[in-house]
Amino acid sequence: MYIRFTNARILSMTDGEDIYEGELRVKDNKIAYVGEKCESDEKFDRVIDCQGNVLMPGFKNAHTHSGMTAMRSYADDLPLQEWLNEKIFPMEAKMTGEDCYILSKLAVLEYLTSGITAVFDMYLAPYDIARCAKDTGMKFVQVSGINKFGPSIEELEERFLKINDGNPLSSFKLGFHAEYTCDLPLLEKIAALAHKYKQPLFAHNSETEREVKECIDRYKKTPTELMDSLGMFEYGGGGYHCVHFSDHDIEIFKEKGLYAVTNPGSNTKLASGIAPIQKFLDNGISVAIGTDGPSSNNCLDMFREMFLVTGLAKLTTKDASAVDGLKVLKMATVNGAHAMGLNDADVLAKDKEADIIMIDLHQPNMQPLNNIAKNIVYSGSKTNVKMTMVHGRILYEDGKYNIGADPEELYAKADEIIKRIG
Amino acid sequence: MYIRFTNARILSMTDGEDIYEGELRVKDNKIAYVGEKCESDEKFDRVIDCQGNVLMPGFKNAHTHSGMTAMRSYADDLPLQEWLNEKIFPMEAKMTGEDCYILSKLAVLEYLTSGITAVFDMYLAPYDIARCAKDTGMKFVQVSGINKFGPSIEELEERFLKINDGNPLSSFKLGFHAEYTCDLPLLEKIAALAHKYKQPLFAHNSETEREVKECIDRYKKTPTELMDSLGMFEYGGGGYHCVHFSDHDIEIFKEKGLYAVTNPGSNTKLASGIAPIQKFLDNGISVAIGTDGPSSNNCLDMFREMFLVTGLAKLTTKDASAVDGLKVLKMATVNGAHAMGLNDADVLAKDKEADIIMIDLHQPNMQPLNNIAKNIVYSGSKTNVKMTMVHGRILYEDGKYNIGADPEELYAKADEIIKRIG
Repeated sequence: MYIRFTNARILSMTDGEDIYEGELRVKDNKIAYVGEKCESDEKFDRVIDCQGNVLMPGFKNAHTHSGMTAMRSYADDLPLQEWLNEKIFPMEAKMTGEDCYILSKLAVLEYLTSGITAVFDMYLAPYDIARCAKDTGMKFVQVSGINKFGPSIEELEERFLKINDGNPLSSFKLGFHAEYTCDLPLLEKIAALAHKYKQPLFAHNSETEREVKECIDRYKKTPTELMDSLGMFEYGGGGYHCVHFSDHDIEIFKEKGLYAVTNPGSNTKLASGIAPIQKFLDNGISVAIGTDGPSSNNCLDMFREMFLVTGLAKLTTKDASAVDGLKVLKMATVNGAHAMGLNDADVLAKDKEADIIMIDLHQPNMQPLNNIAKNIVYSGSKTNVKMTMVHGRILYEDGKYNIGADPEELYAKADEIIKRIG
Repeated sequence: MYIRFTNARILSMTDGEDIYEGELRVKDNKIAYVGEKCESDEKFDRVIDCQGNVLMPGFKNAHTHSGMTAMRSYADDLPLQEWLNEKIFPMEAKMTGEDCYILSKLAVLEYLTSGITAVFDMYLAPYDIARCAKDTGMKFVQVSGINKFGPSIEELEERFLKINDGNPLSSFKLGFHAEYTCDLPLLEKIAALAHKYKQPLFAHNSETEREVKECIDRYKKTPTELMDSLGMFEYGGGGYHCVHFSDHDIEIFKEKGLYAVTNPGSNTKLASGIAPIQKFLDNGISVAIGTDGPSSNNCLDMFREMFLVTGLAKLTTKDASAVDGLKVLKMATVNGAHAMGLNDADVLAKDKEADIIMIDLHQPNMQPLNNIAKNIVYSGSKTNVKMTMVHGRILYEDGKYNIGADPEELYAKADEIIKRIG
């Protein structure tokens, strides 16, 4: 397929907030041209007049649990540990691989409405999730959520080798659920595996005060200090949430070049706290943004997350200029891609992967056009996502999906699942 | 017009979270029937099959400055006083009544996309805003923003008498901008006017720490104490923002039955602080929700505000059960209507005014239907607003507007205005 987008505003994310009028061409799964308007006598399979709308890199949802769509609004208004132990774990125990496949597909629909072109997904049944990626066309970077209840370290290694089969839509990173769901021997085995393959490691880290306190009680170390002491960060990686970080934790993240993936919607709804984003930036730590799962958030909406990242930073620093909109846009696109190892899906440039969204400016919340980039962060919403293209395929356009599955059928199947396992 | 809505889920807001399958009929501007499905041989002008979607009362935006659409993303990332004095006031000085009419119409488009059926609007050029209400079909309850720079108290009285002309779409309440933009003689005159007409009074109140501190420096009283000491609350009313409230302020609001209108999006973006919503509820104070103007927020989106109301309360109280989703839904509908004096537009019941929205459940962010009311608050977005009906007229349906104005023309006119006054 060769697609030409004309009459666009290009927010390439290669050069800050710079937006220019131009065009973009996608050949198969890559960007063949992006720049000023220029004549062409090539044959295109489709020419899309963008009508002055914005083309920009798709959002990267750098932490989620897609299959948890079943539990949306199932157990709200509860603190994290109670919610997890009493409500979520018992349901998950009854979930099959096929359930996970269906529920992840349901999540894909929602990601697309929010302009998300890739997800960093930690959940059960990774082979079924890989199948979901390939069947829907969505880009899934999975990360292991191994913990002391399963799977074994051998299974983890097998998943790592098998799922990284070269399909650009489906890859797998080493990781584990969290310190508090693993014991020391398991953590040591995970560290050894990361060393064996020279791989980065990711895990939930310091999401709640209780988690940090209990880790210090157990090991006299914060979760970050413990992981570092086990050599888990020799090949990079990062943490999800990173809410309750000490100055020493921040130093470790800085020194090792780790990614702090922030999840403000979930941290807010579960009353977990506010991550120190301004401090991360002051220390040169790369921040990426994730929605977390739809059971804790409860939606998969990068616009909500972007506003919360800047808004909560402004509140905690009492400084309206903190973490401005443009920095947030970079976190939601470029930094997310890099954290997930998608270095070819970060910006709009020639030969980059065609993970592209079109932002509709012909909507009242985007008018007038005083500052388009800030409009996207401060007043943007899902209504502004006119198109979502993943790896060169348009999966969502003008409210219609193209993922090889009927939304109503997915809703009905999700309903059956929740009736069986709820 | 006689419209029948069949196959709906009714969230009447008369009885907590209760949702039932039923139907609703609108005759002219009122609800003629709401309840279980029942046969009818009446003639309807239109029958709308809701396909299981939710009908609920429209959201009431209980504090906004509609005409500030011009300044969206014009001066972001600045603290309140600098933003107001150096950026906003100079622009407003150049704004004409016709500008205000156009810019308010632009805001109406956005309100409708967010399911807002009435706004409590404080801005310049009230006669032009009243014209906007009547021309578009939107319900505007205006409130005076008088201050020491204008208009005179006599003009205020004239506006109050003239704009309250009995048109249900346009009414006018007494009020003033804020303590810090008025002097004492003016505040006394405003209090006298409220007494003369036995009217409630509304004003910005304790939005920032600086505002409260400076008021205490001037009068040895908080803004709430000062207003109360001047007899401003004898006939009720309330405050916008209400962020930095002392226990004594809360006592006064409780004793006088005043409304605290919270604006979390704006307070977040301007780093003003977090209103003590849980304390208000503990003291039986009615809380309503407003977006504030699109220059400080920057969008007019009740879904964002609702999530922030509950989320920020959870964060500040460190309690995930604080201010649950259902309480927020009541604030955004019933309490807002009552604060604005729209006592007949609060719930779905026979003979109430037909200010109704349809929430689309056939969207991935609303699935599965574990708890529909919580889905609306925790994962809802503008994409879920399928229809907005104001006073019996459908002004927005499936992304199309019916306000007697072309959106693209409004965008172009707003652009001309910003070029002239910016």
